[in-house]
Amino acid sequence: MNDQDHSYGAEGIGYMDGEYMGFSDLRIPVTDLGFQLADMCYDAIHVTDGRYFRLDDHMDRFEAFIAERGYDSLGHDRETMIRVMDGCMARTGFRDAFLMLVATRGVPTSAKKDLRTCRNRLIVWAMGYHTVVTDEELENGCNIIVADTIRIPEQAVDPSIKNFGRLDFVRAMSEAYEKGSQYAVLLDGDGLVTEGRGWNIFALTEGRLISPEKGVLEGITRRTVLELSEQLNVEATLGKLHVDALRGADEAFLTSTAGGIMPVRAIDDKPVGDGAPGPVTKRLTTLYWDLHKNPDYTTAVDYGAADA
Amino acid sequence: MNDQDHSYGAEGIGYMDGEYMGFSDLRIPVTDLGFQLADMCYDAIHVTDGRYFRLDDHMDRFEAFIAERGYDSLGHDRETMIRVMDGCMARTGFRDAFLMLVATRGVPTSAKKDLRTCRNRLIVWAMGYHTVVTDEELENGCNIIVADTIRIPEQAVDPSIKNFGRLDFVRAMSEAYEKGSQYAVLLDGDGLVTEGRGWNIFALTEGRLISPEKGVLEGITRRTVLELSEQLNVEATLGKLHVDALRGADEAFLTSTAGGIMPVRAIDDKPVGDGAPGPVTKRLTTLYWDLHKNPDYTTAVDYGAADA
Repeated sequence: MNDQDHSYGAEGIGYMDGEYMGFSDLRIPVTDLGFQLADMCYDAIHVTDGRYFRLDDHMDRFEAFIAERGYDSLGHDRETMIRVMDGCMARTGFRDAFLMLVATRGVPTSAKKDLRTCRNRLIVWAMGYHTVVTDEELENGCNIIVADTIRIPEQAVDPSIKNFGRLDFVRAMSEAYEKGSQYAVLLDGDGLVTEGRGWNIFALTEGRLISPEKGVLEGITRRTVLELSEQLNVEATLGKLHVDALRGADEAFLTSTAGGIMPVRAIDDKPVGDGAPGPVTKRLTTLYWDLHKNPDYTTAVDYGAADA
Repeated sequence: MNDQDHSYGAEGIGYMDGEYMGFSDLRIPVTDLGFQLADMCYDAIHVTDGRYFRLDDHMDRFEAFIAERGYDSLGHDRETMIRVMDGCMARTGFRDAFLMLVATRGVPTSAKKDLRTCRNRLIVWAMGYHTVVTDEELENGCNIIVADTIRIPEQAVDPSIKNFGRLDFVRAMSEAYEKGSQYAVLLDGDGLVTEGRGWNIFALTEGRLISPEKGVLEGITRRTVLELSEQLNVEATLGKLHVDALRGADEAFLTSTAGGIMPVRAIDDKPVGDGAPGPVTKRLTTLYWDLHKNPDYTTAVDYGAADA
């Protein structure tokens, strides 16, 4: 596991409109509706020791996002997207990395912004691997708050298509800062737990794991945890998780491509269990990182792709 | 009234990070959280015959947005923002124009994206004046649909702070296209009318105008209509507008800085009134554009500011 916090994007490499460039040179036109309407989708993939984790699953998901949004003029199929990812990785030389695949609606032909006139745009970047929480929190657990701000409901925006329209998270982050935390979980309008900025959440109660079923991103790390739980003979399901059940859990953790499995030590300053990462969280974390050595779950980066 | 549809942004001028540039060169770093979290706010102002319309009201509002977001490192006060607007206008030479004032959170120092580490960014651009609807629709009315997609509720995101987190509108636009329309009005979760992409809506029933009170942008054109209605002795209020009341209205129109007062001739293909712009809509439209010659409501652009 690698959690160096680079100065943001330093040494990263980006790709846009057929060109590779330094990450800090990667800029999108303000006319792109990916900016003006958050009309975009993205996926995040990580590389550990030179191997993509669950590459096919990420590409399946990203292609599904693109199809859902109706981006049919992206000009890149799976093969060329992976070639671009390899191209970015090769240029960085990173063995551990975080990759972003972004598709935007693109620039319309007139200020009336008819979505159908846009040529869709692919943006890719590779940067040093990073985690949602700090190294210390990865070890000892983080303190999250339950925000008063609710998650944007799926009747308005589909949360299962990863996107940058995240002003609900922004407001929730401000609530967290005011309470001395940096992480907020959002509820829906009925007091059911949804997710945080870039992560899903799990609660363990009486030996059973549960993670919210609805109103959330269908995370790849979440899926991995569900699969690994079987190996541990821990019952793990998706379902309704009420905020009171989360607060009363024996263990809780966040899942994200940026960090894997991250223990929660307190919710609104009240300890979860005994306030330290629990045994199920720890065993899952070990299994999760072991999986990164399993060729069934990983794909080698082509570091020769810098010539592409 | 000027409704030429320029090729998007042609001849426009932008400003960012202390530099003026062609509008098509205006690009923001993908690391700016204005893109990655839609953590931004904006205002749109128009210029008619060389004069800003309700400049002070727009600046009051934009400053309130900035304060609400907590953007305290923008580095521009009202005077310098207006100087930049004049600088853009002077460089275009446009007599009729549409100006955008955008403030973003900026770029964080690390991939953990702590909002408090960002230096806020101001982006301004001036482009040819344009309207939400076509010239023909401005004359004869437009056909809108009522979307199944609901508006993002204010418990999640404050709609009174104008922002680009608009995936609800994107989904509603797709619904409109499928039904042969280009414009969608969104309801809240209780069947109350909210707004469309970039416009408020008014309904006239039994001589009384009503526009949604909650869950919407507090539009400057909306405010102008409320004020002008007094001159016409038409009762106009903000309140709850149920979708059934909108469908049964005698007249309906949209309001926006991009177009002013725009008649609705049909809702879901069913005519509003007799399917043509009604007398109240027409009289308000005349008064609205007359106001653009009134020095109490307008401020001269400083076309000498190109030297600034």
